[in-house]
Amino acid sequence: MNEPFKKEYVKTVVIGGGTGSFTVLSSLKNYTSQIVALVNMVDDGGSTGVLRDELGVLPPGDVRQCLVALSDSPKLRELFSYRFEEGTFKGHSFGNILLTALEKMNGNFSEAVETAAGILRVNGMVVPSTLDNVHLKMEWSEASYILHGERAIADEYFQNDPRKAKLSLTPDAKANPTAIEAIMQADLIVIAPGDLYASLGPTLVMDDIGEALRQSRAVKAYVCNLVTKQGQTEGFSVSDHADEIERFVGGEMLDYVFYNEQEPTQEVMKRYKKENAYLVPIDKKALSMAHYESIGGNFLGKMVRRNKSDPLVNRSLIRHDADTLCSVLMEIYEKHRSQLLR
Amino acid sequence: MNEPFKKEYVKTVVIGGGTGSFTVLSSLKNYTSQIVALVNMVDDGGSTGVLRDELGVLPPGDVRQCLVALSDSPKLRELFSYRFEEGTFKGHSFGNILLTALEKMNGNFSEAVETAAGILRVNGMVVPSTLDNVHLKMEWSEASYILHGERAIADEYFQNDPRKAKLSLTPDAKANPTAIEAIMQADLIVIAPGDLYASLGPTLVMDDIGEALRQSRAVKAYVCNLVTKQGQTEGFSVSDHADEIERFVGGEMLDYVFYNEQEPTQEVMKRYKKENAYLVPIDKKALSMAHYESIGGNFLGKMVRRNKSDPLVNRSLIRHDADTLCSVLMEIYEKHRSQLLR
Repeated sequence: MNEPFKKEYVKTVVIGGGTGSFTVLSSLKNYTSQIVALVNMVDDGGSTGVLRDELGVLPPGDVRQCLVALSDSPKLRELFSYRFEEGTFKGHSFGNILLTALEKMNGNFSEAVETAAGILRVNGMVVPSTLDNVHLKMEWSEASYILHGERAIADEYFQNDPRKAKLSLTPDAKANPTAIEAIMQADLIVIAPGDLYASLGPTLVMDDIGEALRQSRAVKAYVCNLVTKQGQTEGFSVSDHADEIERFVGGEMLDYVFYNEQEPTQEVMKRYKKENAYLVPIDKKALSMAHYESIGGNFLGKMVRRNKSDPLVNRSLIRHDADTLCSVLMEIYEKHRSQLLR
Repeated sequence: MNEPFKKEYVKTVVIGGGTGSFTVLSSLKNYTSQIVALVNMVDDGGSTGVLRDELGVLPPGDVRQCLVALSDSPKLRELFSYRFEEGTFKGHSFGNILLTALEKMNGNFSEAVETAAGILRVNGMVVPSTLDNVHLKMEWSEASYILHGERAIADEYFQNDPRKAKLSLTPDAKANPTAIEAIMQADLIVIAPGDLYASLGPTLVMDDIGEALRQSRAVKAYVCNLVTKQGQTEGFSVSDHADEIERFVGGEMLDYVFYNEQEPTQEVMKRYKKENAYLVPIDKKALSMAHYESIGGNFLGKMVRRNKSDPLVNRSLIRHDADTLCSVLMEIYEKHRSQLLR
């Protein structure tokens, strides 16, 4: 085991789905060629929701974003992200239509994703966390939601504390065996920033995913969100986010938690305030006592100008500076690994 | 000019658009790698018509078929031809949607076709005959149609003899310069079997295309249709078809006319009779006096089973046996060329 360390061969699994995964993957591919992006399968908003409803396909939206993030071709990235602005196809993104056509043609979503990856010249793999057609269910002693239908999970406003809810997929789902294998063989697992309940939970709460995550000998890092989400994670601190991740997985397993310490501009803060979104509080005391190591940094990217025709952009006003984040991530991983080898 | 003859470098232009071009191109690509498929831009039926109406794009349908014919990848051929069977996208073929997205993205149909060709791994080029958004106009002294709207040209039933009509594009169109260049540089030009008025006329009647065709030093062959078309070419003989082609072009220019001599089965004949379609009569006397050489052969392919979900297949019950046709075509071309060199 004394071969020289080569970042480009670090087998890295990124768990997530939305904008956070997109941001991390877009940069991470410059560090390693061995990326597996694990994507939740519960999205049912917008174009994805319509395609699921009408054609009974698995949700293409988050898969498309990850494929685009890992693609080498600027032209094809643009094509896959292109969203029709009028007519019958209004609001649908081309990549979603492509994945849907491939799935309808072959009756197999995995194969559809693989073919799309080939067309897009993707480095690495995008792997759906399950191949079952599922929705997210949240149960409280007082209430129970199955989150699907007209409103996407991302827009839900929970009446009860989501930390007290039991999350599961319905109908009962089996993880994609390729996902399990990727987790077991990984050197590094990154839980990307993303909605706890709309993006991360739906992958992490699957029993076999949780078990694999607990067993895998990979270094496991969680990149905490920049801001809280109204009606879902209001008031959640960094350690609250991490606790929730581990609750989903069913046990302590994180080695590192990354959080942002950089202040955004007043303009950004004001605009977030309008949506009752606030910077995630850094609870240093709780973090210092946690079983994982917490690492703060200046991880703030440039402000993203919102754009009505691109709902993806609308989801977050600020994003992580993925280059800084990924270089720190790889540094930590390298240090961790050399300590293990000593 | 004494280099040995190599079929694979014969610069061949195929003019057409529909099923006939598809059939010829699918086989011709095994003989030469230098194919340019020239496609008319007036189609407005089905999926193509909806996309033109709603999004103002150029007609993708025939371009798509030619791209598919020239593609090397069975999987991508299948994807491009895939037609949605339900939901919002019902009836639309994936390839049409792709070409439309690319055109809307870049505002440039030529570039869209090129990008699609790259994705499909196409051998050769598919070239729109014009980049203007046009429809076909037919004028008689008694009447004048502009052929677009609800019914596709292919379904028109002419009230007057179409041979007496003046054909033109409206608004006035300029040929695609790439089309002119391809014609001028060609060794061999094949006018594919296809609807005289819906497919071939709209390309051939453009002034600059006609002029290029008359000037080009290529060997020029027309492959006559197998059957007549109700309401359009009823009773047209082989030489009538060829005459109409030359009328469109504006002068004598054909070197060869190929026609089928093989009888189809009784079953096929019966089914055609229901649509008032009949084998194109072979008028040997007129052919023997024509300025071009006419070549009959057993060019009948297998019967195609009709399939409701595939309108392409519905268009013709029998097709040319393209392998036999193309091998005779290349033989004739080779003979013609060696006579010229003597």
